Amino acid sequence: MRIYWTRLQDRLERLRANKLFETFVILVIVTSALLIGAKTYEEASRFDQLINWLDLGVTLFFLFEIIVRMAAEKRFFDFFKKGWNIFDFVIVVASLVPINDSEMVLIARLLRVFRVLRLVSMIPELRMLLAALVKSIPRMGYVALLMFIIFYIYAAIGSFLFENIDPFLWGNITISMLTLFRVATFEDWTDVMYATMEEYPLSWIFYLSFIFLTAFIFLNMMIGIVLDVMQKESAAEQLESGEGEAAEIHWMREHMVAMSEQLQRIETALEQERMRNR
Amino acid sequence: MRIYWTRLQDRLERLRANKLFETFVILVIVTSALLIGAKTYEEASRFDQLINWLDLGVTLFFLFEIIVRMAAEKRFFDFFKKGWNIFDFVIVVASLVPINDSEMVLIARLLRVFRVLRLVSMIPELRMLLAALVKSIPRMGYVALLMFIIFYIYAAIGSFLFENIDPFLWGNITISMLTLFRVATFEDWTDVMYATMEEYPLSWIFYLSFIFLTAFIFLNMMIGIVLDVMQKESAAEQLESGEGEAAEIHWMREHMVAMSEQLQRIETALEQERMRNR
Amino acid sequence: MRIYWTRLQDRLERLRANKLFETFVILVIVTSALLIGAKTYEEASRFDQLINWLDLGVTLFFLFEIIVRMAAEKRFFDFFKKGWNIFDFVIVVASLVPINDSEMVLIARLLRVFRVLRLVSMIPELRMLLAALVKSIPRMGYVALLMFIIFYIYAAIGSFLFENIDPFLWGNITISMLTLFRVATFEDWTDVMYATMEEYPLSWIFYLSFIFLTAFIFLNMMIGIVLDVMQKESAAEQLESGEGEAAEIHWMREHMVAMSEQLQRIETALEQERMRNR
Amino acid sequence: MRIYWTRLQDRLERLRANKLFETFVILVIVTSALLIGAKTYEEASRFDQLINWLDLGVTLFFLFEIIVRMAAEKRFFDFFKKGWNIFDFVIVVASLVPINDSEMVLIARLLRVFRVLRLVSMIPELRMLLAALVKSIPRMGYVALLMFIIFYIYAAIGSFLFENIDPFLWGNITISMLTLFRVATFEDWTDVMYATMEEYPLSWIFYLSFIFLTAFIFLNMMIGIVLDVMQKESAAEQLESGEGEAAEIHWMREHMVAMSEQLQRIETALEQERMRNR
Repeated sequence: MRIYWTRLQDRLERLRANKLFETFVILVIVTSALLIGAKTYEEASRFDQLINWLDLGVTLFFLFEIIVRMAAEKRFFDFFKKGWNIFDFVIVVASLVPINDSEMVLIARLLRVFRVLRLVSMIPELRMLLAALVKSIPRMGYVALLMFIIFYIYAAIGSFLFENIDPFLWGNITISMLTLFRVATFEDWTDVMYATMEEYPLSWIFYLSFIFLTAFIFLNMMIGIVLDVMQKESAAEQLESGEGEAAEIHWMREHMVAMSEQLQRIETALEQERMRNR
Repeated sequence: MRIYWTRLQDRLERLRANKLFETFVILVIVTSALLIGAKTYEEASRFDQLINWLDLGVTLFFLFEIIVRMAAEKRFFDFFKKGWNIFDFVIVVASLVPINDSEMVLIARLLRVFRVLRLVSMIPELRMLLAALVKSIPRMGYVALLMFIIFYIYAAIGSFLFENIDPFLWGNITISMLTLFRVATFEDWTDVMYATMEEYPLSWIFYLSFIFLTAFIFLNMMIGIVLDVMQKESAAEQLESGEGEAAEIHWMREHMVAMSEQLQRIETALEQERMRNR
Repeated sequence: MRIYWTRLQDRLERLRANKLFETFVILVIVTSALLIGAKTYEEASRFDQLINWLDLGVTLFFLFEIIVRMAAEKRFFDFFKKGWNIFDFVIVVASLVPINDSEMVLIARLLRVFRVLRLVSMIPELRMLLAALVKSIPRMGYVALLMFIIFYIYAAIGSFLFENIDPFLWGNITISMLTLFRVATFEDWTDVMYATMEEYPLSWIFYLSFIFLTAFIFLNMMIGIVLDVMQKESAAEQLESGEGEAAEIHWMREHMVAMSEQLQRIETALEQERMRNR
Repeated sequence: MRIYWTRLQDRLERLRANKLFETFVILVIVTSALLIGAKTYEEASRFDQLINWLDLGVTLFFLFEIIVRMAAEKRFFDFFKKGWNIFDFVIVVASLVPINDSEMVLIARLLRVFRVLRLVSMIPELRMLLAALVKSIPRMGYVALLMFIIFYIYAAIGSFLFENIDPFLWGNITISMLTLFRVATFEDWTDVMYATMEEYPLSWIFYLSFIFLTAFIFLNMMIGIVLDVMQKESAAEQLESGEGEAAEIHWMREHMVAMSEQLQRIETALEQERMRNR
């Protein structure tokens, strides 16, 4: 019994690692994405039955694929040790929940949309790209906090001063922050400004100072990221390749120590020679 | 008497440096910020009494906290030697002024908004971030001046030529500069241009040359900042860590001097040997 | 017979390499571009006959020039080994097809527009610039894919949720992606948002998360390109010029090996001396 | 006679180099700028007489100042060897031309605006900044040409296809290029697109391909500038300061040659010793 299981596991393991199987999985994900897209077309209602069948097929294949990957694992719980596996599992299981309630149809559809994200978990290059993006998030934390404080203060001031002019834009602090984000993206910001300038002619100071501050901090943040990424990249490269300037300098430094010791030995030898000759 | 004072001072000192106390201060600041935000909601009028009581509590706690920090200082006036302390002091004192006059309510509210900035003075990372931002300001001075001159010239020309077309946009040099800033942010700039092109068909030259000039100078300014920050960063790192390329090169240079001297000694020794052997 | 052909070929070869001839070709291309531009003016209809004659002249000259370049080639098919030659050939041949059908006039005109691109194939600096641009495309592939996935997911969600609010903007997934691209360029994005916020008050989360994600990935992509271009540039320069830091370090490394060997020889010699003297 | 002239010249030379005199000139230029600004205000008409008198004063002082600078020059024509001097001379002479004709008033005013630019010629830091900006222009030439070709081709296509839809935007190739520049700045570009999409549903390809191309080339251009500026900056710094990595490496390289020669001498000496001892 156990031997059969091990044999099966080996086969599943081989299947999982198979390049063709991987390509097929990617194709199924792309099909699933196209099905989602197709559903948004009015004309697609004629093929509703076909789309539903294909959708069921995709769901079942995803179930099969995740079972293969789980079974191929030597220890069952090792499967859940990788973040991407949990991600895949949640997406697959979520789309299995039967939906009869008509209200739930929308949620079911939305869940199916996230199946497209499985492309990221399947293609290693995208996984690496995303990992790099995630890594740069924490370093931006404090800049984001500073930015938020500035938005909050300007939103509070804007809310106090301009609430009666246009409650739609400055009604409360949340709406004001949204309006300020709009100003920061330069989206019809002059309309917002001209409206308040009628009552407070000097309110352009409010907008210009806000734009300069946010642009200035954003610029500095961007430079910060560039610097950080650059230093990490070059450091990583030095360690890996053993080539380039940094590597040659490191080689020279180590070599110099050896040369220095050799010189020391030569000098000592000469000294001894002289002593003996005296 | 004096001993009691010293003992109390030690306790206050320990309280000030306490991590828990610091966290509590930050929490009070955040509460203060939330109170300000809450006041902007219409629905909050029901809880007006509660908000006012909480606000009073925050004000009193801030007073208490600043007294603790002042008393903890060995010499009283040392407290005012740090810029951030003065900043905190002004904000706390300003919010203590009793406001009965209904007209002053707005100003009181605005003053309270700036209490959110105390977050920056409390969190060391934000303080460092702000210090870095402030440092990069002077270096931009001349670029800003050049930018201002360009804005001024274009605003004067725009004011002379387009005043009769649209006094709202080109009425005087201040308004014209505001309009040009709008053009520089690409905010409905074609509407501004099309209006003047009806009378002066070649006025697109005015706008395009302005956009190219400002974009070009801004780009160069940005590069300037990047360069400056980079050089300072790497120089600072070299001095601190003693690691990396620059440090290794520096080590090698110093070592080479020693090797050179050693070689000199060896050569002299050999020379003397030869002299003696002759 | 053969000798005459070889002589002719030599002459054509010399003609092709002639700087004056090259300048004349560029002038003809510029003329061709101006003719295309002139045709777009209503007032140009009076000179229609002249423009047509000039156009025919340009077409014939292009034919002559490409025959010269083909004949100048030692082996006829070598001509088609360079991408730019194929590009020129296609453009010239396409504009030779006689057009009588009135419907085809538009296509003929469009084909003639692409003759302006021959400027790029004629000026070496532009050719190099374009080659550099093309080189940086593949490296952006996966980032573009990731960007597309994000657009696709947001477009699907937008299509499901907002289809009934504004079918013009969210009718199907293609239109939704176009709308999202509009949002990413900040073009009247608040109008799009305010419309959906009336039904779904929290839909600002949809827009803000989308803007942050795309801006964040775009920023990282840009940095990636900068880094890549920089490393390649500096590496290429090192190999070429033999000057600068990298070259000096390389020289030192190789020299150090020689010095090390010399030291070895000196030490061995001293050792032998000592042995002999014992 | 000649001695008096030389003495006067020395005095003028000293006056020109005087810091106080320079500051006064700058103050006069700023006054001149403020006068220009004041004239754009309606309320200023009351002070018209005063402004005119001040304006005359500024004009005369500028004339005096330029005569001082010319006379201070040892050889008269040396004055015109510096670009900035010619610039100052033209501006001063142009504003001397008497204007009686009412139509010329506008031109006279515009000429006076350019007097503000004298600030750039007076402040050395601004002069350096501008020189740096001018230096980076030629290097952008070919990129600008490539950009222009793309604009031209898209404008021609747009003009052919969309002329009948909106002649205001696509009437001829010049107007089309202006419209495309508007699209490139994202200014209400969707309005332009939606209008043409009604007739040509696929015209979004035209706009999106244009946006991607121009953005892509602009990005590359920006990186090009960054790279170029960086390399020049660091190279210049190395030559000047004699400090930093590059300088240390250079020192080491030269030192290594000396050490190598010394080692050669030592080896030769040992060799000779051995020969003699045999």
